[in-house]
Amino acid sequence: MPSIDVCYSPELLHLYELQGKAVVAVDILRATSTMVTAFAQGARDIVPVMELEECRTYAAKGCLTAAERDGVKAEGFDLGNSPFGYMQGQVEGRTVAITTTNGTRAIRMSEAAAEIVVGAFLNLQAVADHLARLQLDVLVVCAGWKGKFNLEDTLFAGALVERLQDRFAFENDATLASLYLYQTAKADLLSFLRQSSHVRRLERLEIHKDIGFCLQHDLYQVLPVWKHDRLVDLCVMSSECRMSD
Amino acid sequence: MPSIDVCYSPELLHLYELQGKAVVAVDILRATSTMVTAFAQGARDIVPVMELEECRTYAAKGCLTAAERDGVKAEGFDLGNSPFGYMQGQVEGRTVAITTTNGTRAIRMSEAAAEIVVGAFLNLQAVADHLARLQLDVLVVCAGWKGKFNLEDTLFAGALVERLQDRFAFENDATLASLYLYQTAKADLLSFLRQSSHVRRLERLEIHKDIGFCLQHDLYQVLPVWKHDRLVDLCVMSSECRMSD
Repeated sequence: MPSIDVCYSPELLHLYELQGKAVVAVDILRATSTMVTAFAQGARDIVPVMELEECRTYAAKGCLTAAERDGVKAEGFDLGNSPFGYMQGQVEGRTVAITTTNGTRAIRMSEAAAEIVVGAFLNLQAVADHLARLQLDVLVVCAGWKGKFNLEDTLFAGALVERLQDRFAFENDATLASLYLYQTAKADLLSFLRQSSHVRRLERLEIHKDIGFCLQHDLYQVLPVWKHDRLVDLCVMSSECRMSD
Repeated sequence: MPSIDVCYSPELLHLYELQGKAVVAVDILRATSTMVTAFAQGARDIVPVMELEECRTYAAKGCLTAAERDGVKAEGFDLGNSPFGYMQGQVEGRTVAITTTNGTRAIRMSEAAAEIVVGAFLNLQAVADHLARLQLDVLVVCAGWKGKFNLEDTLFAGALVERLQDRFAFENDATLASLYLYQTAKADLLSFLRQSSHVRRLERLEIHKDIGFCLQHDLYQVLPVWKHDRLVDLCVMSSECRMSD
């Protein structure tokens, strides 16, 4: 039986073996939730990059550019990091180059893995179904907050473990803790998260609506995976998602 | 109101400011539980060192030497890392030089802090009382398991937060998660921990008895603090502990 483990921060990633594993990269507030939304709105592919300057160069290649720093849309880019900014048809058929504080890092640091899937509550079941088919050992890589543990990514990890618990071994401490926390919180994730100073800081940036949106489970049948140098939606690229419907 | 925060691994310690803070170093299974026990059994002071070879040199200085690697007593040392090994009068009035896999590291990496206290369930209330008097911001530094998150140190952090919650601000995600996990687990800590592969690995080393012992709350009125280059018991050095009785 394959196993599922959880890494709470990119700062801990060097302690984990990535080769041959399926990594689920997660940054619930808001990078991976926004990427999932972009694909649901028809984006062709997404290029996650580490630096603002690199991201800016993609405009000349005909791409949309998206950037966020410290929770706010960066100056001079087409898009920010709010999923609602991707819903007016502007991303359909387009390539989006995106750089975010924590989420991009979690993806790019996981490139040694056999597969990288982008996870969010919004596409939780699509991710769970894909992992169950793959039958690889899974490592959930939480983006965290500036390298530190955060609750919302941990709760996503717990939700994924709950859905996979009959088909995966889970006995590492971080995996168990994620599951327990999710089981404590799931009746009202938003109230649970509102105790967090980090989430309250995001709320002060007036993204209440985003937070509620990003906590919705299974809104989209979307499966962003890393191919060569970018993310593509496996549900569009293959018949895989339709097979599981 | 001072704050209390939790760092889940020495690998994350560079993300935290230590200056002016009180650090609580914790390695429940078993370094800090054993250090607390050694003081309760009359040890004069404890020198935590990083390497086996350095530890060995303390024998020539008339010290007892204690060493553990991967859960087992290391060859050629007087003592291991089981609290029961310290209960036959051998440590009374002696200096003990000790090196352990994770716990020593958590202490030595925290030297920039204003105060370092060694915490365990065994001296939980003594630590809580001391921190309440100090009125400094607190950082609990979990030793973890080879750099990774572990449950038992996190549960200790949660127990400490529970006892200090009326007098300290706690709103960081790691602090909240520790408290929730402790509240879920506290009715039966041992059963809770037995789901952990890391704890089961320790159990296979036949230290069942140690694990049960280390989970007892408030057995000792002992307060190991870092002074210059070693740990001393503040309850012996001052009238502080007696004042709180």
